[in-house]
Amino acid sequence: MDIQTFSQADILNFEKRFRTQFVNALSGFKSGNLIGTVSLSGVNNLAIFTSVVHIGANPPLMGMISRPNSVPRHTLENIEASRFFTINHIHRSFYAKAHQTSARYSVDEFSAVGLTPDFKDFNAPYVQEANIQIGLEYVQRINIEINNTIMIIGRIVEVHLPNEIIEPDGTLAIEKAGTIAVSGLNTYHTTQKLEQLPYAKP
Amino acid sequence: MDIQTFSQADILNFEKRFRTQFVNALSGFKSGNLIGTVSLSGVNNLAIFTSVVHIGANPPLMGMISRPNSVPRHTLENIEASRFFTINHIHRSFYAKAHQTSARYSVDEFSAVGLTPDFKDFNAPYVQEANIQIGLEYVQRINIEINNTIMIIGRIVEVHLPNEIIEPDGTLAIEKAGTIAVSGLNTYHTTQKLEQLPYAKP
Repeated sequence: MDIQTFSQADILNFEKRFRTQFVNALSGFKSGNLIGTVSLSGVNNLAIFTSVVHIGANPPLMGMISRPNSVPRHTLENIEASRFFTINHIHRSFYAKAHQTSARYSVDEFSAVGLTPDFKDFNAPYVQEANIQIGLEYVQRINIEINNTIMIIGRIVEVHLPNEIIEPDGTLAIEKAGTIAVSGLNTYHTTQKLEQLPYAKP
Repeated sequence: MDIQTFSQADILNFEKRFRTQFVNALSGFKSGNLIGTVSLSGVNNLAIFTSVVHIGANPPLMGMISRPNSVPRHTLENIEASRFFTINHIHRSFYAKAHQTSARYSVDEFSAVGLTPDFKDFNAPYVQEANIQIGLEYVQRINIEINNTIMIIGRIVEVHLPNEIIEPDGTLAIEKAGTIAVSGLNTYHTTQKLEQLPYAKP
């Protein structure tokens, strides 16, 4: 392949949308999740995030990066007000609906895009169509001052998932559950398992 | 599918390794990257991270989560001492070597696993075998106190990648570049593009 080098100055000189696409792809494949919240006045909100990361297993913690004044604003406001949120894996059958939640709706995104809110007995709405649903309690907000992004950390309160994807060692076969991967800003991918490798020893 | 529900208490009662596998899979697909660093005494270090995330495009910033007293300790020490590091996408041809960097070596992981350090004109070693190589300068350390993990943020200084994967809008076809996705602790996947969707409007 013909390798090209870009300096920091080259990247800063890119046209804005070109740079956004380019830099967004550099981290590699991303998780694709829908975050479900509800406002204090009872309006449901659903937003796609590709920045959900594992923070720790004990206590079980997950994090995500939010832009302060951008599309996911309602998500952040609702989490801080209601203290609860859900993370729902995007299944290959509804990735286009999930993507559509990134539009700036003034109404409930569930009904706008055609997905179904399902509270079960939790304090925030799950996506009924999702195979893997995680309910979290808000733990901490970390302000990343260098660019005013915000990391939200939540503690897992409950998990709903298909029994068939749980392997004997605790591994979850999320590919078998239909979970998609994302690259860049807006490209969706299915996956094909290569191999599960054992714990590495020298 | 037969949906099973797990409470927080169920998860805390899992056997430790089972819980680690289970919770690590809940965030969805992850990026798979090798972080290259060098100590002040000149010893190269290479470590696999599945927690690299996009932080921002302008300035171009990337982050990653590090455990303080675990495998990536040398990575963190080297970044704080030398101020530079590289992020290298794991290509499907060397995912097993990349995984092997997670073993606790007392020697240089490049030679231990059979990958080639390549400094070019940078202050940290790239993985020569990687198609997508990013050189970063250390910007900030954020301590996540709830579980003593650490977020490291770097500013992109230079990028090396194949010309053929750059699309007209700035999108990088990382699938075409052979970049893999990871699930859970240790499962590697190739991807198959479904679709790139346009900017969503209501």
